[in-house]
Amino acid sequence: MRKKVLLTGFEAFGGEKINPALEAVRRLDGRKIDDITIVAQEVPTVFHRSIETAVRAIMEHEPDAVICVGQAGGRLKITPERVAINIDDARIPDNDNQQPIDEPVVAGGPAALWSTLPIKRIVRRLKEESIPAAVSNTAGTFVCNHLFYGVMHYLQTEASDIRGGFIHIPYIHEQTADKEAPSLSLDTIVKGLELAAVTAANEKEDIKEVGGATH
Amino acid sequence: MRKKVLLTGFEAFGGEKINPALEAVRRLDGRKIDDITIVAQEVPTVFHRSIETAVRAIMEHEPDAVICVGQAGGRLKITPERVAINIDDARIPDNDNQQPIDEPVVAGGPAALWSTLPIKRIVRRLKEESIPAAVSNTAGTFVCNHLFYGVMHYLQTEASDIRGGFIHIPYIHEQTADKEAPSLSLDTIVKGLELAAVTAANEKEDIKEVGGATH
Amino acid sequence: MRKKVLLTGFEAFGGEKINPALEAVRRLDGRKIDDITIVAQEVPTVFHRSIETAVRAIMEHEPDAVICVGQAGGRLKITPERVAINIDDARIPDNDNQQPIDEPVVAGGPAALWSTLPIKRIVRRLKEESIPAAVSNTAGTFVCNHLFYGVMHYLQTEASDIRGGFIHIPYIHEQTADKEAPSLSLDTIVKGLELAAVTAANEKEDIKEVGGATH
Amino acid sequence: MRKKVLLTGFEAFGGEKINPALEAVRRLDGRKIDDITIVAQEVPTVFHRSIETAVRAIMEHEPDAVICVGQAGGRLKITPERVAINIDDARIPDNDNQQPIDEPVVAGGPAALWSTLPIKRIVRRLKEESIPAAVSNTAGTFVCNHLFYGVMHYLQTEASDIRGGFIHIPYIHEQTADKEAPSLSLDTIVKGLELAAVTAANEKEDIKEVGGATH
Repeated sequence: MRKKVLLTGFEAFGGEKINPALEAVRRLDGRKIDDITIVAQEVPTVFHRSIETAVRAIMEHEPDAVICVGQAGGRLKITPERVAINIDDARIPDNDNQQPIDEPVVAGGPAALWSTLPIKRIVRRLKEESIPAAVSNTAGTFVCNHLFYGVMHYLQTEASDIRGGFIHIPYIHEQTADKEAPSLSLDTIVKGLELAAVTAANEKEDIKEVGGATH
Repeated sequence: MRKKVLLTGFEAFGGEKINPALEAVRRLDGRKIDDITIVAQEVPTVFHRSIETAVRAIMEHEPDAVICVGQAGGRLKITPERVAINIDDARIPDNDNQQPIDEPVVAGGPAALWSTLPIKRIVRRLKEESIPAAVSNTAGTFVCNHLFYGVMHYLQTEASDIRGGFIHIPYIHEQTADKEAPSLSLDTIVKGLELAAVTAANEKEDIKEVGGATH
Repeated sequence: MRKKVLLTGFEAFGGEKINPALEAVRRLDGRKIDDITIVAQEVPTVFHRSIETAVRAIMEHEPDAVICVGQAGGRLKITPERVAINIDDARIPDNDNQQPIDEPVVAGGPAALWSTLPIKRIVRRLKEESIPAAVSNTAGTFVCNHLFYGVMHYLQTEASDIRGGFIHIPYIHEQTADKEAPSLSLDTIVKGLELAAVTAANEKEDIKEVGGATH
Repeated sequence: MRKKVLLTGFEAFGGEKINPALEAVRRLDGRKIDDITIVAQEVPTVFHRSIETAVRAIMEHEPDAVICVGQAGGRLKITPERVAINIDDARIPDNDNQQPIDEPVVAGGPAALWSTLPIKRIVRRLKEESIPAAVSNTAGTFVCNHLFYGVMHYLQTEASDIRGGFIHIPYIHEQTADKEAPSLSLDTIVKGLELAAVTAANEKEDIKEVGGATH
């Protein structure tokens, strides 16, 4: 039976002209690898509307796994997130000019929700292909964490057979021509996300492998 | 009525000869500021034993607030932590040579517990005194996060009138003579922790002020 | 016989409200340490006029040593510069809106001029007092390097008994409240520059001690 | 008439198993692009012997341009160097266990020698292809700067019609699996060096374009 993985990617925000997350997932839209099909969905960089858009896409596509993808400018590696926290604390306004401070993503929800993706398998798989990757223990408190939490809350309550999680990606080279910041090529990111999607589709259980941070 | 704040500081770990957290809290042990007394407690950099030691000190001193302090080598600022997560994932062994991977701090505990310190007031107070400070959204997955989670779990279940939390501090200058890493003076850190202790003793409610991270 | 050290400090530039170099040298103006007197001179952050101002101050004060001080936002340590290069290549306009690209500081001058300060003694002395310090091998290509080269050229041709050089300093804490950048306290920088001035006044010869960079 | 570009690459050093500079230039050895042929030469990461090896290769191949390539672990971009300085100051021993401190590369040589490569054209060309690139103003004080200075000194005195210079490259992804450091793919570096070689072969004059650093 065919498997399906839904990837979401954000619109550009914070003064950037492009969002590499969206560029990357667009390139993967419709791609078939063995028995796996990838579908991509653009989401607005807006509190709450991002969750609604992602949840509608989950209901429409009924994927085996959903991976939300966002840009983490300044990071060195492709970083599957371990945990979403139930807080919005926006350092900058979202694309609808909302800037919530210390409000819950889901009122009454638990403080945090774990990724149900096999994050350590994903990291290992990317490293096998010489793609920089590491587990991250914080998705921040902006729209990325918000979407991550919202999607995990939906899955936990409504569709617990669907695995889900979030992957942050660095800038791509096109964004750092005049910036002192690390970047990866878009090709590397696309390849990394494809490997992540395949791993998420095929593996229900994660491995126990060092992936922590001292702080 | 006098108030009391308990500060805990870790032994050195990870090849460092000193732990600035321990140096700093020792200097504050017994200090009196207005109606507040600070007491300090050393804790082993060891999974579980660190929690036991801290909980015994809480039971002994019955403080108004407890602030666990740990080193975050590489950070630029004094960073009150927002949230503890229920996971141990040790990149290096602790000082008893334990290296748990993806085990819960407290079996059956919630995924995360929030700091009950007024973390944004603390950040604002330090910045008023030109001490570098910012909220952090991850305490890592090593003994620091472990102790933070363990203490918050104890307080939540056994002593919910005591405020508690964790503050990470950078290297001190003495540690970076031959390292390419940021550092603060020990005096600055001691002053910062004293201000944090006073703020924690006096303020039950936090303020709503931007303190988030985009990722 | 009394000794004199001239310190120069730049006006603010590049959008910063203050220049910690100027703040620090002002605090040292007139300070007497043993038989040494420090005098301070503000210089404009302007190509050529900065050199003219510094040279006039050298002619007026006839110091034993001159140390030009400038801000290097983003650096971790107080960094005596090893070498000035004969090029202006301005990434941003100076405070008179000049932006030279690949022009010599002094037409016909040598490609580079060495600091004649005992830079490694200065680094060692600061480290003895737990002040972060390291030799730097580039002063950039903006007004800092320009002034450094211009002063060394003047000293070499007109006053070769006066030792001279340049020290870059990090941001101070006041500048990084809303920046992700390292900083030192102004007190630490003032103490470091005082130690540098005393060392420059007392020591004609430098020591041989590792202070290089692999790149 | 055919043109020739000589690329040199260092052996691994400093505990690394590979040197991406050597990996990259090996891949380009013998490559023909239009009327240009690239030849590659391995050089030992050893003071003086590196220069001897490079000079012999220059005498043998009589190239139009020579580009020495070295690893700069921690840098974000491919960085053509602007200037070589006449100093050896080794933070670590070379591969023959020599560790010179503050000795000249060439006794009696000028303080510095400029690259004669069109470094800003190279940077522009790489950026056109979305390869991270920037001018660097320091090649350090280890074997990289040493070779750069030695080659430029030879060219200036013996073969002034040959353009020459040095390009530092970041780590490649294979080196940073367990490091917190930026890296590029080997493919990106190979492509960047090929573009640099072609530009060096074709362009005698550089462009005036902002490429400076404030410090």
